[in-house]
Amino acid sequence: MTSKILGAQTVRFDRPPSVASSACAVGKKEGAGPLADSFDYIFSDDYMGEKTWEKAEAALQEKAFSLALAKYPEPVSGIRCVFAGDLLNQCTASSGALKERGIPFFGLYGACSTMAEAAFLAAAAVDGGYAEAAAAVTSSHFCSAERQFRFPLEYGGQRPPTSQWTVTGSGALIVSASGNGPYITHGTAGIIRDAGVKDANSMGSAMALAAYETLSAHFSDTGLAPESYDLIVTGDLGSVGHEILCSLFARGGTDISAFYRDCGMLIYDSEAQDTHSGGSGCGCSASVLCGPLLNGMRSGRWNRILFAATGALMSPTSVMQGEDILGICHAVAFSNTK
Amino acid sequence: MTSKILGAQTVRFDRPPSVASSACAVGKKEGAGPLADSFDYIFSDDYMGEKTWEKAEAALQEKAFSLALAKYPEPVSGIRCVFAGDLLNQCTASSGALKERGIPFFGLYGACSTMAEAAFLAAAAVDGGYAEAAAAVTSSHFCSAERQFRFPLEYGGQRPPTSQWTVTGSGALIVSASGNGPYITHGTAGIIRDAGVKDANSMGSAMALAAYETLSAHFSDTGLAPESYDLIVTGDLGSVGHEILCSLFARGGTDISAFYRDCGMLIYDSEAQDTHSGGSGCGCSASVLCGPLLNGMRSGRWNRILFAATGALMSPTSVMQGEDILGICHAVAFSNTK
Repeated sequence: MTSKILGAQTVRFDRPPSVASSACAVGKKEGAGPLADSFDYIFSDDYMGEKTWEKAEAALQEKAFSLALAKYPEPVSGIRCVFAGDLLNQCTASSGALKERGIPFFGLYGACSTMAEAAFLAAAAVDGGYAEAAAAVTSSHFCSAERQFRFPLEYGGQRPPTSQWTVTGSGALIVSASGNGPYITHGTAGIIRDAGVKDANSMGSAMALAAYETLSAHFSDTGLAPESYDLIVTGDLGSVGHEILCSLFARGGTDISAFYRDCGMLIYDSEAQDTHSGGSGCGCSASVLCGPLLNGMRSGRWNRILFAATGALMSPTSVMQGEDILGICHAVAFSNTK
Repeated sequence: MTSKILGAQTVRFDRPPSVASSACAVGKKEGAGPLADSFDYIFSDDYMGEKTWEKAEAALQEKAFSLALAKYPEPVSGIRCVFAGDLLNQCTASSGALKERGIPFFGLYGACSTMAEAAFLAAAAVDGGYAEAAAAVTSSHFCSAERQFRFPLEYGGQRPPTSQWTVTGSGALIVSASGNGPYITHGTAGIIRDAGVKDANSMGSAMALAAYETLSAHFSDTGLAPESYDLIVTGDLGSVGHEILCSLFARGGTDISAFYRDCGMLIYDSEAQDTHSGGSGCGCSASVLCGPLLNGMRSGRWNRILFAATGALMSPTSVMQGEDILGICHAVAFSNTK
């Protein structure tokens, strides 16, 4: 056992890497939402100048990473690897976005939890001495996701109230051994959880248990209380999953509602923008983290954030075959002090 | 710069983790091939007792991991994480296989390079002090891959000579801070390469350049000559990619043919089994590594192996949209001495 290992699922970084830069790029709808002012770039056209939605998503991810690189104060040659993923079949948005960069590439698939998984592994690469700096990038795109997971857009399918709206967005961050924070201090790795949900229009229900288990493991492993954090934020549980998670904690006697938010609820005005339960997708938590949340830490609005991105491990095939939608949640702790 | 960082793409593990156990499970066709004697388990029916090919692939991966766990001499509680991936959309074979295990799960997508990516990250997790032990598991299944990437099986499509046969197989290994080897001494992370190939029936051509670049980086970063290894083995270039890779090295004045093999060529008798250019898939290099190769190291047949798994980063959509098939290759060095 090293000093880095805490409890069953958590690691503590001995030399917490600093988020040396972060950036996000989003689509038109997200740019019309309540977080518009804190996004780095808002595309006016969801094709991003490309001919297909899949290429548009790659362009979106490329944009977020370019913006993060432009803000990065150290030599780009120190970025020894990039951890990246998306929701497209075979993760082609990530490989398309990063194909020209010449940076060693580790492809990930963690569904909508991918940004936490990527940030965790990038932080470990730096803390472990394998890289001076490492990057984490993820994306999602409403149009590429909608036709892959649900229906052709032209079909105009009705959406039930529990459904979520896939965010057109991408976030990128670069962690470095040097820098003045925010620092990544801990990571809690998620375990696959089966809540018995089969409804692909109710992803929040499918993922809330995984979020509860990972957050509980984090508190148990570190000895930290939920209120140690100024903000606990899940990836994309939406309003349905948010309510379930609050209930699960309340059942154990903990009221987290004052300092717990969900990226999927923050990114849209669900009434005005007709997004039902809220936003979802790898790009949801990534763009909220890499813009609003990290900017808020830099400005001192929050000093400690626990970022718990949630993923639904399913495919259209697994759903059609009647399999349960499995949930996972990885959590990463950000702090303005080491 | 730490002592772990070598050159542009390679890391050297300070405390090389030991492969404490490994196992593989394969399908009927693979079990009728030249490596049959060194596979741990051969399924007699490619449905593996399940109702769908996707569930069959999950069962295959579960089998390989169970067998590796059964051979693992230390407490399973020390396995702090498993890195896993497959070729199915949204990697559902891996999540399905590991959903009952209760082990923190990092999902990967590296196409057919996933076993090297997973072994690399598992070794780094242990060497870096984040885990006493960590696992790497990948799979592929001919039937689930064929219908997803090509045609319905019932269609009986003709295959050109450059095509490869997706291996029904899975390999799992567990690396540990303790143990007597084989050790993982180095990892060289791959960069995405575009060789300009668009033909999904010629994956070896699409991936050979990436293999060449990663192997060249490994030799340059470490100062090791190709002949330092008893065996250099690529993942699934097949006979077409094998020939290209030999030519690329020959052009630089290096003849690697005496000690270079490809898992895709080793696993089948391509003439007798009608597999054209050879085997492919995440499960190809994984089952050959976790059975024949690591067993061969344990018996002293080879003392040093450089395992370079290759992946084609494409989807049926990207191919239909006319995009180039991008290649990647991650390399991991195994040695009987630290």
